[in-house]
This record gives sequence, structure tokens and C-alpha cells, in this order.
Amino acid sequence: MALVVQKYGGSSVSDAHSIKRVAKRIAEAKRAGNDVVVVVSAMGDTTDELMDLAGQITPLPPQRELDILLTAGERISMSLLAMAITNLGVKAKSFTGQQAGLLTDAVHGRARIVDVVPHRIRETVERGQVAIVAGFQGVSRSNDVTTLGRGGSDTTAVALAAGLEADVCEIYTDVDGVFTADPRIVPNARKIDRVTYEEMLELAASGAKVLALRSVEYARRYGVPVHVRSSFSATTGTLVSGTHGDAIDPNAPSGAQEEAQMEAPIISGVAHDRSEAKITVVGVPDKPGTAARLFEVVAGAGANIDMIVQNVSAAQTGRTDISFTLPQGDSPATMAALTGVQAEIGFESLQFDDQIGKLSLVGAGMKSHPGVSARLFGALRDANINIEMISTSEIRISVVTRADSLDDAVRAVHSAFDLDSADGEAVVYAGTGR
Amino acid sequence: MALVVQKYGGSSVSDAHSIKRVAKRIAEAKRAGNDVVVVVSAMGDTTDELMDLAGQITPLPPQRELDILLTAGERISMSLLAMAITNLGVKAKSFTGQQAGLLTDAVHGRARIVDVVPHRIRETVERGQVAIVAGFQGVSRSNDVTTLGRGGSDTTAVALAAGLEADVCEIYTDVDGVFTADPRIVPNARKIDRVTYEEMLELAASGAKVLALRSVEYARRYGVPVHVRSSFSATTGTLVSGTHGDAIDPNAPSGAQEEAQMEAPIISGVAHDRSEAKITVVGVPDKPGTAARLFEVVAGAGANIDMIVQNVSAAQTGRTDISFTLPQGDSPATMAALTGVQAEIGFESLQFDDQIGKLSLVGAGMKSHPGVSARLFGALRDANINIEMISTSEIRISVVTRADSLDDAVRAVHSAFDLDSADGEAVVYAGTGR
Repeated sequence: MALVVQKYGGSSVSDAHSIKRVAKRIAEAKRAGNDVVVVVSAMGDTTDELMDLAGQITPLPPQRELDILLTAGERISMSLLAMAITNLGVKAKSFTGQQAGLLTDAVHGRARIVDVVPHRIRETVERGQVAIVAGFQGVSRSNDVTTLGRGGSDTTAVALAAGLEADVCEIYTDVDGVFTADPRIVPNARKIDRVTYEEMLELAASGAKVLALRSVEYARRYGVPVHVRSSFSATTGTLVSGTHGDAIDPNAPSGAQEEAQMEAPIISGVAHDRSEAKITVVGVPDKPGTAARLFEVVAGAGANIDMIVQNVSAAQTGRTDISFTLPQGDSPATMAALTGVQAEIGFESLQFDDQIGKLSLVGAGMKSHPGVSARLFGALRDANINIEMISTSEIRISVVTRADSLDDAVRAVHSAFDLDSADGEAVVYAGTGR
Repeated sequence: MALVVQKYGGSSVSDAHSIKRVAKRIAEAKRAGNDVVVVVSAMGDTTDELMDLAGQITPLPPQRELDILLTAGERISMSLLAMAITNLGVKAKSFTGQQAGLLTDAVHGRARIVDVVPHRIRETVERGQVAIVAGFQGVSRSNDVTTLGRGGSDTTAVALAAGLEADVCEIYTDVDGVFTADPRIVPNARKIDRVTYEEMLELAASGAKVLALRSVEYARRYGVPVHVRSSFSATTGTLVSGTHGDAIDPNAPSGAQEEAQMEAPIISGVAHDRSEAKITVVGVPDKPGTAARLFEVVAGAGANIDMIVQNVSAAQTGRTDISFTLPQGDSPATMAALTGVQAEIGFESLQFDDQIGKLSLVGAGMKSHPGVSARLFGALRDANINIEMISTSEIRISVVTRADSLDDAVRAVHSAFDLDSADGEAVVYAGTGR
């Protein structure tokens, strides 16, 4: 008997009808002999509606109260889901983050999980009942309600799976899994069957929205196998785990297991991100400590910077330009902070550009395969797309382009690495000398 | 410095605008030098909307899950109210029933408070902050969320006031206080300034809806002064306390205190109730144990019976008729249960009548003043209203009439006891020999 943690997002439980549909799926998993723990988000637009209510009261709600307000959303969805499952003849009980033992620090709005003590969840499962747990929320040591911030429900699910030593954590979403690129941009993108934590981390950090970055970090730390799949079909999705060799279904026939022990593909997929902006600090005096001071100021403004490029300084002026990318939302505070130290640092001017796009090519195989970047740049050149910035990690290459060239860039690169192969199954790129 | 517990019902916090209005009132009470603890119900129709959602999922939701669902309502109103108060420059924090230490038994849907341990509320108040507490909800020993049932928020407020040894518990509502009769029926009914716990209990039990019966019982047990007043005006309302002599404002000038030390009025008010039905068991064999068996069956059906009348049995038949009143909602189950034992008990038939009304005259003074019932019956006779049943307590006389005569009956009785006096202030009925 397997212990399965299933997570359903807000779009899967948007109304009474879809709650009943999800309940049916959970009841089936239970009747198939599994122990089932379910993590659920707030229904559809509930969180937005609650935020809107808060906005009608005050432009600056205290974060502690905002957390209490927003957690009403999961309270509603989790109790309705427990009712719907019970109505199908399967016993189910719902639990808040506090009741489920999701202990966090006291940073309201973006609390970190510090411990998971799921006594009541374990008891409920041992009694043969389904435990429904509110996603996105926890409780601090002082017994205050906290929320985990963006992607919080994914993290709740993975943390519970780790705490319960579950066999798998299934993340149900409105797509079939992780794709080689966004299917809205690349129609013949294909579903990736297996991806490592490292690759998934790079994909999530580079704009792939299917799984929250934090939950992947958590899954990697505790070795929780995560199965990303659709709540609208029974199709197998994408397994995120330590290696490409893991089989998705622990009960699968041994043939499938063997088939999975193949060499990893070089490239997992192409992620893109349109949510960043670029700030260029023009004419920065090229002397020791200037860059340090500059990024101290940027960090003080709370900005989460991504790529940084510094030009070689012009010999005759002793000045250089420094460009960096950051989330568009962090830009106003950052521009203001930099303007405030213009005289002190002595740079000439600031340029702001929110019409950029970022493309990232991710794959554990590129470590041992030369020629990946040459092929990437070649594909962009052939598509007549200008590269403005470049950054790399061991298993990722990212480039910044004009925002309106980004879709073309994604398609060109996806094609250049043969990702849109027609047979759509576990294509292996091994030793082609790229 | 006084410690004041204020309770605001759903109609006082129905939208963002009214939440801000209530927040202003709370901030004023705080700035006037009081320590303030606020109990709040769910916004306007929230509870109905949540019940409707549950109804879309299942006709028979498990009560534990229904409690979790419904408590989302206060979570929303309390956090928004805390935000609104903070926005006015007064620090405020909201607390769930669990956080406020409202410990209950585990009877979901109608839990009883077993203890109040308001450490966090006391700490919050001692820090000079306003504590907002979710009404209607508590937590069981097993850390499950419970609701207190009908009138639960009033009870939360009184229980907290008792636990905190507050100077007064203010129940804010949409009327100016407790009236000598329902002003919709008797336009010149007047607000009662002072009423004892016993009188208020009889009024609440007889249909006066301004204060939940349970909260009055709790207030009497712990001697909590309750001030029922309007959230739409600054008018002094009705003080419910141990005697008629208590002044409403502990800081009032001594003249007001002395004025209050007058003899109690004979009659406090006229309550009415249109929510009951009458069942008559016709031709019951008049032998020992029959009535006991009959009401055993009624109790087994969960009915909360009110008045009982048994006729003298007819000598020639050895049979009698037994009539009783009960809430209309309890009638179907009761009729079914009685039908099931017709053969066993041997009665002839059942009659059901939901076209009845009940009028109750309440006043602590009637104990020592003869003639009250004669005057009551005389007034009804003069108005040509037939009395179908009568029951009495030490400080109450109730009569059952036709439902469509009830309004006329209330007006006639209100008038006969000079309750609709023009001067509308603390009229004293002393020693007039009635």
C-alpha cells in the first residue's frame, strides 16, 4: 500500500462541480488501496477576491491580518472537499496548517517551514480516512497563522510528503506535466517524462510556472519524488526526482523500469520569462568597490537581481556601464534607491527597459556535451534575433532578447535542439558531439 | 480605565464601508481611555453563502466540516476589522476562537463553552492594543474547530467579558436596545433602560430576538453587565444586569446613579413569537404513565416543547386531549414519531396547527402585584381575542392566540399596561394595586 500526497491547485477546485470531480479522483485513489493525503489551494479566484476586500479597507494591510484573511480561502475549499469525499462514501477530514503541524517562522506573507509534525494526519490515515490539508498556510511558534507566499501550496504538499515519508507527491495542475517549452508558444512542444531536481530548479527559476521553485528545492533536500500531472486526465505526467532513471510508478512492470535506465537527454527544455526588466547604470567610475556599493544599494531596495553584465571600461574615460535584470515589480524601488546615490557613486545616468525577454536552455546533459552554446547562438542568429545579455550555469544557458522576439527565439531554439520531435517519447540525445 | 467588550453582529459589518464605520467607533472607545476587546460576527450574508456552497456539494455535510467551513466567515470579518482599525492609527490584532482561548466541548454545530483562557487577549490589551476576536467559534480539547450555534457571537462576547472580568459587555445591534414590544408591531413601544437577567431570559425565551437566550444565561451566571445598544447611534441602550438599580455608565454623575435606585416597574415588556406550532393528541387513555410515555416519544424525536395543556378527562370515556407547542421546525419529526406509537399508546388522532401565535408579558414586578393576569385577560377580551392556551412563570404570563390575532393582542396588552407612555423614560409602575 502506497502513501500518496496529492495537491490540487485553485483551478482544479474552482466551483462545486470541480470539487466533486476532484473528490471522485481522490476516492478512486483511496479505493485503489492507497493511503491518501490531499493538499488543496483556495477555490479559483477566492484569494483575489479577499485581496480586493482588503484593498477596500486599506492600501497597506498589516501582513499578520492579511495572512488570517487569506487563509480563509483554503478553509472553505478544504472543508467542501472533505464533504464531497464523504458524500462518496469515503471518510475524509480536513485540517488547517496549524492542525496538520506545519510549523513556520513568523515572517508573515512569506513564512518558511521550520518543521512538519503531522501527528494528526498520520492518525487520520492510519484510521483509513483521507486527510485534507490546507495548502499555503502554517502556524508560527507563537500560534499565529502564517502564509508561505507564492507557490505555497506546492511547498506544503512536498513538505508533508517528506514529513510523512510518502511514496510520491502528486502535483495536479491544468496541464499534462512539464513540457520542453510552453505549448502556447511552441505547439509541438512535448511533455518531459523525467527530469532531475536540478533541471527542474533551473526550469522553475527561468520562468517555467508549472511547479514552484521552493517546492522543488524542498523536494531535492528531502528526496521526495514529485509527479506533476493533469487533474483533467489520467495521463502520466512528469516525474521530478534525483535521476532520469526513476520509474514513475513504483508498481510498474520491470520492463518499464529497465527502459527508464537510459542515458539522460542533453536538453530538458526551453523556459522563457517575460516578467523581468533591465536597468543599466551608465558611466560608472571604474574603481574598486564601486560595483559592491551599487549592488548594496540595490539589495537594500529589496530587489532580487538575476543577471549582471559589466562592459570593459573605455580606457580614455575610466568609466564603464553595468546592466542587470530584476523582476519588473522590484524596479520602481530600485530606480529610486539608485537615483538617491547618484552623486555619491558618481555614475552618469540610469536607463530602464522593461521590454526584455529571457530564454533559458536547461539540461543536465550539457555539462558533458560541448557545442551547446554554439548551437544556441547559431539558432538565434539564423532567426535574426539579437542577444543582449548572456549568463550560464552548469546546466543552463540564458540569453536576454527583445520581448517581442522572445516567442520566435523559443521556437527557433526548441527546433534547433530537436525538442519538437514527432514521436514525443523519451528522445535520447547521446554523444552527438554537440 | 474601563475594560469594555464590544460585540458587532453581521449587519454591522456587512461591507467594507460599514467595517470602516465600526472601526471608527472602536478607535473612539479606545482613544477615550478604555481597554477594548471586540467580538465580531461574519459579514452580512457570508454564513448563508457558505451554507449554500455546502448545499451544492452534499445535502448532508458532516458537522465537523461544516464548522470549519462556517468559521471562515469570522476569519474574514475579524481580519478586515483589524486592518481598518490599524488604518486609523490604533493598533489592533485579530484572534480566532482557538487563539482567544474559547475552549468548548466537541459537539460540532452547537458546542458549549467549557472554559475561557484568554491569555493572548489579555496580553494584547495590556500592550495597549485592541483585540478582535472571532465570534461563534471555539476549539475542542482535540484541537478541532467548533461553532456555538445560534446566537453564538453574543455568547462569545459575554463569555470573554466574564473571563476577562470586563466592566461591561456591549452588544451592538441594529436597534436602540430592548423595547417594551416589537416596534414594528407597536409603533409607540419604548426602549427599556434597565432589565434584570431574569426578565431578559423570559423575554428572550418568549421571542424577543435582540439578545440570544444563551448569552443571557451566561451573563447571569457570571454577573456580566450587558449593554444592548445600536451600532448606528451613540444613544444609551438597555442595561441587562442583576437589578433594576444598576447605572449603565459606571462613570456617570452620582445624580444619575440615585435616579436609578427607584422601584422596579411591574412589567418590562410584551414579547411575541410566531415560530411555534401546536400538536393536539386527541383521545388519550387517561391512565397513569400515558403522558410520560407520550413525552418520552416527543423528546426522542428531538423536539423542544414549550407549553403543555391537558384537559380534564371526560368521565364517560376515560379519555383526555393533550396539547403542546413546539418549534415549527421540530414538528414533522414529532408528528412522525407520535404516529408510530398510536397503537401502543392508544390515542384516537393527532391534530396539527401552525397558525398559532404566542404573547408573553414579562416583568419581575408581577410577583408581588396581584391582578396582572386579570388585566391581561381583560385586555384580550376587550380586543375580542380568544385565548387558546395559558402558561405562567413567576415573572411571565404567556397566552396562545390565533396567529392572525397576535399583532392586535400585542398592541392591546401593551396599551393596557401603559407601556406606550408618551414620555418614554423609565416609567415606574409602583403599588397601583393591580
